[in-house]
Amino acid sequence: MKVGVLTGGGDCPGLNAVIRSVVRKGVDEYAFDFVGLRDGWLGLLQDDVRPLDIASVRGILPRGGTILGSSRTNPFTHEDGLRRVQDTLATHDVDALVVIGGEDTLGVATELSRQGIPLVGVPKTIDNDVSGTDYTFGFDTAVGIATEAIDRLHTTAESHMRALVVEVMGRHSGWIALHAGVAGGGNVILIPERPFDIDQVCEQVKSRFKINYAPIVVVAEGATPKEGQMVLKDESLDEFGHVRLSGVGEWLAREISERTGKDARTTVLGHIQRGGTPSAFDRWLATRFGLHAIDAVKDGDFGVMVALKGTRIVRVPLADATAKTKLVDPSLYDEFEVFFG
Amino acid sequence: MKVGVLTGGGDCPGLNAVIRSVVRKGVDEYAFDFVGLRDGWLGLLQDDVRPLDIASVRGILPRGGTILGSSRTNPFTHEDGLRRVQDTLATHDVDALVVIGGEDTLGVATELSRQGIPLVGVPKTIDNDVSGTDYTFGFDTAVGIATEAIDRLHTTAESHMRALVVEVMGRHSGWIALHAGVAGGGNVILIPERPFDIDQVCEQVKSRFKINYAPIVVVAEGATPKEGQMVLKDESLDEFGHVRLSGVGEWLAREISERTGKDARTTVLGHIQRGGTPSAFDRWLATRFGLHAIDAVKDGDFGVMVALKGTRIVRVPLADATAKTKLVDPSLYDEFEVFFG
Amino acid sequence: MKVGVLTGGGDCPGLNAVIRSVVRKGVDEYAFDFVGLRDGWLGLLQDDVRPLDIASVRGILPRGGTILGSSRTNPFTHEDGLRRVQDTLATHDVDALVVIGGEDTLGVATELSRQGIPLVGVPKTIDNDVSGTDYTFGFDTAVGIATEAIDRLHTTAESHMRALVVEVMGRHSGWIALHAGVAGGGNVILIPERPFDIDQVCEQVKSRFKINYAPIVVVAEGATPKEGQMVLKDESLDEFGHVRLSGVGEWLAREISERTGKDARTTVLGHIQRGGTPSAFDRWLATRFGLHAIDAVKDGDFGVMVALKGTRIVRVPLADATAKTKLVDPSLYDEFEVFFG
Amino acid sequence: MKVGVLTGGGDCPGLNAVIRSVVRKGVDEYAFDFVGLRDGWLGLLQDDVRPLDIASVRGILPRGGTILGSSRTNPFTHEDGLRRVQDTLATHDVDALVVIGGEDTLGVATELSRQGIPLVGVPKTIDNDVSGTDYTFGFDTAVGIATEAIDRLHTTAESHMRALVVEVMGRHSGWIALHAGVAGGGNVILIPERPFDIDQVCEQVKSRFKINYAPIVVVAEGATPKEGQMVLKDESLDEFGHVRLSGVGEWLAREISERTGKDARTTVLGHIQRGGTPSAFDRWLATRFGLHAIDAVKDGDFGVMVALKGTRIVRVPLADATAKTKLVDPSLYDEFEVFFG
Repeated sequence: MKVGVLTGGGDCPGLNAVIRSVVRKGVDEYAFDFVGLRDGWLGLLQDDVRPLDIASVRGILPRGGTILGSSRTNPFTHEDGLRRVQDTLATHDVDALVVIGGEDTLGVATELSRQGIPLVGVPKTIDNDVSGTDYTFGFDTAVGIATEAIDRLHTTAESHMRALVVEVMGRHSGWIALHAGVAGGGNVILIPERPFDIDQVCEQVKSRFKINYAPIVVVAEGATPKEGQMVLKDESLDEFGHVRLSGVGEWLAREISERTGKDARTTVLGHIQRGGTPSAFDRWLATRFGLHAIDAVKDGDFGVMVALKGTRIVRVPLADATAKTKLVDPSLYDEFEVFFG
Repeated sequence: MKVGVLTGGGDCPGLNAVIRSVVRKGVDEYAFDFVGLRDGWLGLLQDDVRPLDIASVRGILPRGGTILGSSRTNPFTHEDGLRRVQDTLATHDVDALVVIGGEDTLGVATELSRQGIPLVGVPKTIDNDVSGTDYTFGFDTAVGIATEAIDRLHTTAESHMRALVVEVMGRHSGWIALHAGVAGGGNVILIPERPFDIDQVCEQVKSRFKINYAPIVVVAEGATPKEGQMVLKDESLDEFGHVRLSGVGEWLAREISERTGKDARTTVLGHIQRGGTPSAFDRWLATRFGLHAIDAVKDGDFGVMVALKGTRIVRVPLADATAKTKLVDPSLYDEFEVFFG
Repeated sequence: MKVGVLTGGGDCPGLNAVIRSVVRKGVDEYAFDFVGLRDGWLGLLQDDVRPLDIASVRGILPRGGTILGSSRTNPFTHEDGLRRVQDTLATHDVDALVVIGGEDTLGVATELSRQGIPLVGVPKTIDNDVSGTDYTFGFDTAVGIATEAIDRLHTTAESHMRALVVEVMGRHSGWIALHAGVAGGGNVILIPERPFDIDQVCEQVKSRFKINYAPIVVVAEGATPKEGQMVLKDESLDEFGHVRLSGVGEWLAREISERTGKDARTTVLGHIQRGGTPSAFDRWLATRFGLHAIDAVKDGDFGVMVALKGTRIVRVPLADATAKTKLVDPSLYDEFEVFFG
Repeated sequence: MKVGVLTGGGDCPGLNAVIRSVVRKGVDEYAFDFVGLRDGWLGLLQDDVRPLDIASVRGILPRGGTILGSSRTNPFTHEDGLRRVQDTLATHDVDALVVIGGEDTLGVATELSRQGIPLVGVPKTIDNDVSGTDYTFGFDTAVGIATEAIDRLHTTAESHMRALVVEVMGRHSGWIALHAGVAGGGNVILIPERPFDIDQVCEQVKSRFKINYAPIVVVAEGATPKEGQMVLKDESLDEFGHVRLSGVGEWLAREISERTGKDARTTVLGHIQRGGTPSAFDRWLATRFGLHAIDAVKDGDFGVMVALKGTRIVRVPLADATAKTKLVDPSLYDEFEVFFG
């Protein structure tokens, strides 16, 4: 049996760990052959296919990024996309695919699976917003980096008695903001799932200054104020009307500064959240995902995604997993209310 | 209501995070009063009790160790132990306890609960071997430190083409060894749950050298070879017949060296695995444990332990949790077989 | 003898280490008394003075920021500033000052020293641009954080074959950019000391892509293109005509993207470079600076600054140290030419 | 011109950074050819020689260890050693050598240089004990790892009010112990250069407990008590009569425990101090050493070692550098006296 492996979407710590364990177990235990498809779905569209053997996955466990390259290509937006994918698979005698990606990549996989292509999905995203799994790999690393940054910012904030706004990733969901905000001892945590009231944010900031502590505001890039509170020029909004990257953090610092009379600054963590060596947790999860994905291939159990449930790895239907974005539950957010302000 | 808080057993990253969230929510939301009992059960035996308020828990979230001190005291091994505990609680009008500890400390809590003392348990141990919860806090930090150490040892091993044995914590269970061994790309992982065959270990070591890679052997301090394979002087064994701390790692390096003719060295990670700032994961878990523990106190739901199940915090009967040590399941260990050797 | 200690300017890892060693040696060896002046020169203007003893400096060695607070206040811009400083010193019977700060703070100290106030300076700045000393503390920590960020960005850049621009601190000097750029393996390093040619930058970026590597551009916030190359709206320039914070990095990514046709992104590291626990190097240097500063006070050797020369701590005249900014020498920059492009 | 490169002795973070910069500049700027000699002098004895080009040094800057392998082989202890070295060089038309190593490796280089072999030395050792240079690369990384470990141990020590002994590397010199001890806030620092008095150590430990702090004792592996204080069995001593690895730390903990009645434990840091990614400081230093070493080759300036003096890289005669071990100066040690006990 010949198995193709691809990684799609934004890069994410742990991708290489999945590739390694898929190939190690596939070759050693099931005597499968492997090819790597370059740059996600693009490799299938452009017939960019490389051999993938045990030698090529040695030493990659601790390395960030993906040795297969990645892209955000969607074959269904290309004319003849499906046929070209099928042609490439046929040309290389690929019997099955292991598709490692986030919402978009797995959405394509779901559709291809419906079209009869045998594949198994592996959920990855630093944003943690794929349904059907407790966690995705990459998320723990991103939270760890953001938490360490918040730790560092505390001392700067206290030394100057200024408010510090930290903008973390999360365009549609607030998982990184919530976890890093709680772990870093943030005083205000703002997430896309819950439009915030700028007046209330400023009250929380002031109450923190009142007891002689410097407030840390952790905000997901996709968080937005309540309707009417943010007056932005058109060019500051993206196609969905969301604030553009690096927008909300700077806006918040300016508003806080103006409304409270205190100095406020922003740090936008950006890409450092998604690169570099994966945390031990993510290496463990990614390794297990890979082992279970190749087992599913062996079992001929296609159209599924491997997922974490408690401490076990299970298989869930791809269609269920990609039906909707996993958002932060309001009750989870409210658990931490006592720390806010 | 007045609540007493104590931390027992070996120190563990995240203890302060629990104390902080218990007190923050207890004071702010339920208007409870708090006292801290010094050095675990010892504080109750010796009437060493201190006030505990919000000011005293500020800034402790990222700090390792415990501001309450800890000890391995068991009140039931002291004459009149139970009565002295009851007296101290009465003297200070303590209505309920939050007991943060591992197997031993929670075992005592179970018994005191049976004797009618209202208390809620919070599981902590870097060893992750408390039943009833998916994970304990402190474990992720320990695994992270051990994994980083293994990362570092790889380059030394490769430069000198020598075998490196890393001894990690885990007297009765192999959780740290297994997680860090998998995350660090160890080639042999030895755990207490499964006596190992020194001949097989040496074969795995040799097969690694054969492909020009330097083997890393990750061994839990409590791992033992099969019966008859280790000839040790009496003083190398502890009271249970287990190899004493720093024993098995050194023994392995010597055996590997003698049997394979290759240079082999040992590193015993020791106490650096249990100190220092907690990982983001552990801060998140510890914070949530604290919030839910004080909720249980508020509900009058005593004799329970808070526990992680998937992504939710639940309450389980203390008696269930402390009935037996949570060991590594053989099927979990076998998942990783393809990486060994 | 009573000694006052103050920290001025931007916060910097190692400030607390200096305070600790000044007080420890001053009390234990010379039996001095100490007071802390709050928020730099502001404490002297507003008579905000606190006792400072050994108990108050315990445990602060590894902590970022400054327990004394800081500000950018300049007493000479206040009416009666000098007199108010003198009054506060007289009120509290302060015999001498230890002044810990960067260019601005030490400039004030130089002038106060000329006015007869007995003081000793300690150079601090993450920017490393104080003359008279090989290094300032805080710099090594900042370089370490920036280097780790660059390490992380490499994997993201490679996975997506995109150019990544990293903007680091350094408004007037390129020390952080040069050191972190070299240590992180940056392919283009741009510093304020040398206006860059955007065409040449794009050539270097392209030559990197040509060999299938993703370029990393490390740019100091104060770096500027050659005259005429950057067309900016007025509001993007600060009072000195320099590009405002977060300006040059974004401008570069946009230009690179437009001129090379390749995807390019920016990360602005910002405040995480100046907060948090100091590196071992900075703790060592800061501790020694503190010990030698209090020795100078003991010797009555005022108007000097402690400085690092090779491995020794020496005293240099404050006036010499603050006469001009220490810039990156062109010959040092040229040493690394072979790595560029 | 063809240049051979070798790395000898214990591995050390930064070796790859030197190799990379030697080759990058040698090829790009001087059009030299390169070969790598495997495993230090062994490669020259056994004619184990590999091509070394720019492709083979890509991506190695942040990686610990050495891509050339290393060993502790001394050609002069082999019959015909010198002739075999000369033969290998002749066989491969090697015109000059860059020798990267510590005391032993550079000692051999000195002798070979006297015998007419054109070579340039680069000092490396985590121990920092090579004369003629302010610092060697690898040292800063080792100190950083040891300091972080001490940070972690503080919280464990405080939680249990126990003494913790940390044994760090340094068989003949106390550089790591002194720097990490000072940076980590150790209360007792013991170095080989100064035999310690166990009674005084115990007094310092007790005085620390008296003020309710838990003492940290940092000891170099080669430190020894004053004559007559340590009674060891013969097998605990190495060939030079020094305490064997992992000896002195354990002995100290036992003595402290017995003499003070307090709990005391030991952690032996071991090999984690020498592996893994180099610090930014070490990457900077190693990169510059490499650039200057190949310049010396270009200049035909053989028999020299590149060295750090202040912020400049200079060339010093190899013979001077290897004449004697660089020990910790008593006056430097005494600077920190106020922190001890």
